[in-house]
Amino acid sequence: MENTFGISIIGAGRVGWHLAQGLSAAGHPINEIWSRRHSQAQELAERLPAARVVHTLDFSQSPSRLFLLTAADAALEELVRHLILPTGALLAHTSGSQPLDILKKTAGHTGVFYPLQTFSKEKPVDFTQITICLEAADYASMQLLDAAARALGAQPLPMSTQQRRQLHLAAVFASNFSNHLLRIAHELLQQSQLPAALLDPLIRETLEKALSLGPAAAQTGPALRGDAPVMEQHLRQLFGEPAWLELYRLLSADIQKWKKP
Amino acid sequence: MENTFGISIIGAGRVGWHLAQGLSAAGHPINEIWSRRHSQAQELAERLPAARVVHTLDFSQSPSRLFLLTAADAALEELVRHLILPTGALLAHTSGSQPLDILKKTAGHTGVFYPLQTFSKEKPVDFTQITICLEAADYASMQLLDAAARALGAQPLPMSTQQRRQLHLAAVFASNFSNHLLRIAHELLQQSQLPAALLDPLIRETLEKALSLGPAAAQTGPALRGDAPVMEQHLRQLFGEPAWLELYRLLSADIQKWKKP
Repeated sequence: MENTFGISIIGAGRVGWHLAQGLSAAGHPINEIWSRRHSQAQELAERLPAARVVHTLDFSQSPSRLFLLTAADAALEELVRHLILPTGALLAHTSGSQPLDILKKTAGHTGVFYPLQTFSKEKPVDFTQITICLEAADYASMQLLDAAARALGAQPLPMSTQQRRQLHLAAVFASNFSNHLLRIAHELLQQSQLPAALLDPLIRETLEKALSLGPAAAQTGPALRGDAPVMEQHLRQLFGEPAWLELYRLLSADIQKWKKP
Repeated sequence: MENTFGISIIGAGRVGWHLAQGLSAAGHPINEIWSRRHSQAQELAERLPAARVVHTLDFSQSPSRLFLLTAADAALEELVRHLILPTGALLAHTSGSQPLDILKKTAGHTGVFYPLQTFSKEKPVDFTQITICLEAADYASMQLLDAAARALGAQPLPMSTQQRRQLHLAAVFASNFSNHLLRIAHELLQQSQLPAALLDPLIRETLEKALSLGPAAAQTGPALRGDAPVMEQHLRQLFGEPAWLELYRLLSADIQKWKKP
């Protein structure tokens, strides 16, 4: 396998934005960028030495060997139907939840290249801290995806579609849902005219303990202690917020059901 | 007000452990330690220059001016019934959820000294990162509690019982419940034979974004995007875990109900 290989990016959202720049910096030329939103493709192309914006999904004349499909999950099937790739090219999507099979309508090789991280456009990405979950239908494709992940400095980890879906679900609990609980906490403070930043040191310390001891050993609080009067009082405080009251009930019951190791 | 004042600690759990050592290091002598568990009082006394372990709640001959009641919430009323304090002394509890009134059966001055942090016995505490929520029935008591908080290097913040209770409830969401979600995520990974540490960089980045942008601006994920097929698939994955399925449903519905700013 040659040391560098050309890449085209289909979808110029947050994932495409960071992968394209990372792979380009690692020496793999980004040849083409396609995006449903032209301006996003243009903005990304301006940051890459060799990239041009294309308006067609017919890539039959492309010099690229790897096509990264970084569009939203819901757009994948439609895009795959219209894509025309050069012979021997590898098409990989970057979704945590879509099966490898969703790409099977393309004639060529297929794979998955799912970076396990939350990306913001403004914030630089440290790929050395990121695992990229790989899946491929054949060995040569797996080799190419592995080389791309290593070029970024990321950790490649082959796994099945089923494992990747479970990881994606776990990430929703660990990231999206825990962030939502922080938002609820902020709103509770606002209701009592207390500054939101008051909780920041507690939030940091909770996280440090969860990461160093593991969340099982780090668990504390009224539910774990079985402190019924405090829990009863909290439910009274939540009387005006039925959804949060129900969340309090369920989370407390689940903490109590679980036996601390 | 004199610059240093004697202190007695009633309860030698994690909060008493750290407050006693911090206040002693700041120059306030810890005179006496009482604990239901004698060995804990002994262990703490050995770390303090002037402290002795006492076996009675009759402190009428004590030289201390501040009595910190750091016992568990459930024990407070019973302890208060048996406490005898020197004339003019201030008794303060350290609970996030108990009213100031719970101390009213004592003859003297009363207050609240609630440090907003999660304490572990093994882990040193950086008091400069901690807010201590104060409440007192009179101005001189508030001054003494303020002086004690500042001696620790902590930030004193006077607030009402109602505000402190709301802060405590918010802390349960931000700390205990978010930690529990991390534990669920870990267990989901284990179910699929994936290493728990896989999520650590995502968890760190999520927290950094929540603290720098605020959790409202940092929210992402299938629920916020309204990605119904992915959410439907996640619910199928949770079929064998009805409590987590219900949590997924409620948290997603609450994210969707909320309008992102």
